[in-house]
Amino acid sequence: MAAYSVAIMGATGAVGQVMLEILAERDFPVGELRLLASARSVGKEFEFDGKSIAVQELKEDSFAGIDLVLASAGGTLSKQYNPHAVAAGAVVVDNTSAFRMDPEVPLVVPEINPQDLEWHKGIIANPNCSTIIMDVVVWPLYHHKRVERVVVSTYQAVSGAGARAMEELEQQTRKVLAGQEPAPQELPHQIAFNLFSHNSTIGPEGYCEEEMKMIKETRKMFHDEQIQVTATTVRVPVMRAHSEAINLEFEEPISTVEAREILAAAPGVKIVDEVEANHFPMPIEAAGEDDVLVGRIRQDISQPDGCGLDLWVSGDQLRKGAALNAVQIAEELVQRKVFQKA
Amino acid sequence: MAAYSVAIMGATGAVGQVMLEILAERDFPVGELRLLASARSVGKEFEFDGKSIAVQELKEDSFAGIDLVLASAGGTLSKQYNPHAVAAGAVVVDNTSAFRMDPEVPLVVPEINPQDLEWHKGIIANPNCSTIIMDVVVWPLYHHKRVERVVVSTYQAVSGAGARAMEELEQQTRKVLAGQEPAPQELPHQIAFNLFSHNSTIGPEGYCEEEMKMIKETRKMFHDEQIQVTATTVRVPVMRAHSEAINLEFEEPISTVEAREILAAAPGVKIVDEVEANHFPMPIEAAGEDDVLVGRIRQDISQPDGCGLDLWVSGDQLRKGAALNAVQIAEELVQRKVFQKA
Repeated sequence: MAAYSVAIMGATGAVGQVMLEILAERDFPVGELRLLASARSVGKEFEFDGKSIAVQELKEDSFAGIDLVLASAGGTLSKQYNPHAVAAGAVVVDNTSAFRMDPEVPLVVPEINPQDLEWHKGIIANPNCSTIIMDVVVWPLYHHKRVERVVVSTYQAVSGAGARAMEELEQQTRKVLAGQEPAPQELPHQIAFNLFSHNSTIGPEGYCEEEMKMIKETRKMFHDEQIQVTATTVRVPVMRAHSEAINLEFEEPISTVEAREILAAAPGVKIVDEVEANHFPMPIEAAGEDDVLVGRIRQDISQPDGCGLDLWVSGDQLRKGAALNAVQIAEELVQRKVFQKA
Repeated sequence: MAAYSVAIMGATGAVGQVMLEILAERDFPVGELRLLASARSVGKEFEFDGKSIAVQELKEDSFAGIDLVLASAGGTLSKQYNPHAVAAGAVVVDNTSAFRMDPEVPLVVPEINPQDLEWHKGIIANPNCSTIIMDVVVWPLYHHKRVERVVVSTYQAVSGAGARAMEELEQQTRKVLAGQEPAPQELPHQIAFNLFSHNSTIGPEGYCEEEMKMIKETRKMFHDEQIQVTATTVRVPVMRAHSEAINLEFEEPISTVEAREILAAAPGVKIVDEVEANHFPMPIEAAGEDDVLVGRIRQDISQPDGCGLDLWVSGDQLRKGAALNAVQIAEELVQRKVFQKA
């Protein structure tokens, strides 16, 4: 099997570090591995495949000889550097929001729309973490019977705001327990023993960017501009798995028996729905898992026509919500032979 | 003004302690104050109105000469003792779920249905905390234009599970930060840096008791058996204020301008909706407040007919969710003269 030269943009971040883990775990055929980050991280070293690899400064000429770029250094840097990577012959799987809604760029979750990889032009976008975690579960149900409308509320871990936000949750919690001022820096409000509406910019419709991503990205991946989605996104004092309460309205009646059968067979989904034990998806159990956990699968009694379901999901934000999905895209590219070694 | 002899059942609990605070804050005309709890709390003393009051053991004959009982010692004890209190001539404002759905017992939030106090027969039920916090905000909108359906997801503080659960969140968090096993006792799962589906029993419809309370109690207070409600209730690592993401479907179009006007004028509600500053209701700011905070007031874009709104609320579970509402009921009883001094 061919080995691919891989570059990780943003290698020192929370997602970049999990990309390293996942490339190793899944035996992705990595030849050279180039770790790219900002100048201040140069000199840091990380272990991969028994070797220590030094971080290099991300520059326009960083991509010579690279086949695959896994980009997770923020939208601004993706906008600046992805074109250079593509010009150098690489395929970029971009974990930022920079290219997601670009009609020239496929937005892909391999369990949902792998066929969209066929028309890529060098950049493939990885969806928003909350979108992935919702849609991996909603898609197989939608595929069975069309979903007309989704009402989703999120319970988002701090990992979605990066490694420094994770550190902040820990440090702030220590301070609050010691009776000291929490002094938020990375996040705009106290996160220890608190929660708040996701702090992305609120647009003219009154929705924050995070919410609009869940709406627009779902439509793009499902190839359905008619599906109605409303979302309320909330940051909670949890380290690295997002949870979501999902209410679904289908075009026709659907039973929980049908839903369970479909979800039990769905790739990337694991049912955790132990009613007697009151054991359902929890972020501490989703963390470190590849599958998105789903439970509380029930008929929505507020839709007496039988067309509604309620679900509760938890998924690792850093894995399926980001790094794992990106590596799965790369694997799918290899398998579909739409990915050529430089 | 007449002074009333008041007994607090469950005086040493999280809600009982806040009842003491609120009676003092609001200058409720208290004559004798009798603090009732289980035998193991006898001997504890609490300060009220400059005097120290010793806890007495709750017994069937504890209510002689009492005008008002504020009961918050759990449903089993309310079932056992409330009839004795009523027989002794007292009015009971019961904070437990024991009598809420009894057709002979009014279920009251003074901002919603104070008129139901007129037909009480000795017991008045205080609704579930999540129900109160939702309905104080939904009712004025409903009163303006009928709400057909509610989809609500809760973010519930540990105070709802009592004083020991609050202690557990703190102690468990210290343990997790020290790298020790969290060892849940009061709550069924780890709560530090985690969250889980509300652990009340799941019924035949797949809804837990907490969710069914939100559905049934809303119908009873609104006098509308047709309003459709679905709920997903979740416990989060927050001390004492519940938050809720509320999606509303109205019978006719409603604008955010209308909604804001109505909520700005609604008693018990405070709008916190600073879009530029990304400042919305948060549990740390709702804690200690009497008003339920509401923000993220926006047109639901998944209902293109203009009949939908999305809201985000936070309210103090111990105050408006429990003790404050109970004292407000007592005040309303006094004002309506349906409350006779024994």
